[in-house]
Amino acid sequence: MKVAEMIRTTPARVDLDHDLLARVVEAAATCSQVCTACADACLSEDGVADLRRCIRIDLDCADVCATTVRVLSRHTAYEAAITRAVLQACVTACLTCAAECEQHAGMHEHCRVCAEACRACEELCRELLTTIA
Amino acid sequence: MKVAEMIRTTPARVDLDHDLLARVVEAAATCSQVCTACADACLSEDGVADLRRCIRIDLDCADVCATTVRVLSRHTAYEAAITRAVLQACVTACLTCAAECEQHAGMHEHCRVCAEACRACEELCRELLTTIA
Amino acid sequence: MKVAEMIRTTPARVDLDHDLLARVVEAAATCSQVCTACADACLSEDGVADLRRCIRIDLDCADVCATTVRVLSRHTAYEAAITRAVLQACVTACLTCAAECEQHAGMHEHCRVCAEACRACEELCRELLTTIA
Amino acid sequence: MKVAEMIRTTPARVDLDHDLLARVVEAAATCSQVCTACADACLSEDGVADLRRCIRIDLDCADVCATTVRVLSRHTAYEAAITRAVLQACVTACLTCAAECEQHAGMHEHCRVCAEACRACEELCRELLTTIA
Repeated sequence: MKVAEMIRTTPARVDLDHDLLARVVEAAATCSQVCTACADACLSEDGVADLRRCIRIDLDCADVCATTVRVLSRHTAYEAAITRAVLQACVTACLTCAAECEQHAGMHEHCRVCAEACRACEELCRELLTTIA
Repeated sequence: MKVAEMIRTTPARVDLDHDLLARVVEAAATCSQVCTACADACLSEDGVADLRRCIRIDLDCADVCATTVRVLSRHTAYEAAITRAVLQACVTACLTCAAECEQHAGMHEHCRVCAEACRACEELCRELLTTIA
Repeated sequence: MKVAEMIRTTPARVDLDHDLLARVVEAAATCSQVCTACADACLSEDGVADLRRCIRIDLDCADVCATTVRVLSRHTAYEAAITRAVLQACVTACLTCAAECEQHAGMHEHCRVCAEACRACEELCRELLTTIA
Repeated sequence: MKVAEMIRTTPARVDLDHDLLARVVEAAATCSQVCTACADACLSEDGVADLRRCIRIDLDCADVCATTVRVLSRHTAYEAAITRAVLQACVTACLTCAAECEQHAGMHEHCRVCAEACRACEELCRELLTTIA
């Protein structure tokens, strides 16, 4: 992705740590794609009936992460209240999705990859949250 | 919209108040569309340079409301943590957007309509939040 | 929804028929929500394994319709090429989804409602397409 | 991103070329983020009034590319009609956005980066289109 390049070239003042911001946006974009693909992979499993909750949480997490990418790509982030609320929703969605996928990670490799993507996104969102007043 | 009809016909048990849930989904869908259109209208104004903050908040609010519609349309809502976090983000985005648009409501009718849509969505999200354990 | 009100209050010149444009945006917003809810309802059915294709098409159609709402809410529509391509994708997604849901409409009322929403959206998109040079 | 890993671990049969599919998804995800950020950067420019068309096309292109990521992440792609229509819309949005951004690339580096991301996405979508019957 080219997130860092876009932060560097905006005329707006970006008060957040540029490197951390870029890593959060990339992690959220990755997580949104992985969750969409994991829901689809779960849907193809023989045991789809046992993966209903996993599919729903995957879809929720994909949507929340996509919105996180959008809001953080409007780099200015002087709307601290919105940025914070969206990051908090992203932390909640990612940790719920990670916990669910981890239960299937032994059987389904796509759930293992998805859990890892969710944990990575959750941690980076938490780190960014600590820097927003 | 046909939100109530879809809630009525799902085989899932929907623990939230059906009528309230339907009204929140409709208000969030309305708000997302109105915010997208308000950003576009602001962009066409002669004084676009003074409406930068309004445009950005409109775009953020449109994205957050769209995710709210998605998450609430997976009616089951047994992921109370995600539902709650998304509703809280929606309340924050809508009240920030309403406050900003209200400042331009005297000059720009699209901002007046947008502020009303944001207030309606904010209030319904708050009401739904009180019913989620 | 408040689509017509937003078209009336934008300072931009809107060359498309205002009433038709408003009806397309509302039909696409309705269809996007209904498809999201239909995918979720299918996921709750005992026979979920037989509804995999229906769920996938529902999710595709929900995404395409959501983008249609966005692009058409930037009312100016002087980007005729993008508007046309998006409307064509929307027609294709809606007719594919309608055809699939119609096969389950006898057994699942949510599929019947979804098929109707898709047909309504498809027809209005086609009508709008005929008016774009 | 982890697109290739998710394609490798799905139980579904993926008939499209796996490597090409992964590159299209990554290019569309990159383009969607870059277009969102370019619209925001344009909004911060002193000459925002001259960048209205650029901002609108950026926002359209961001939405179309996001839907492309979603539809292609449901890897099965046996809905050739929807996949094709979405790829065609993506080609149109990306080439329109590239052409617009190229006009500002000399003055605004974010427009140069955006034009490159659009061209890359457009070419990969075209290549994938030639492989879909």
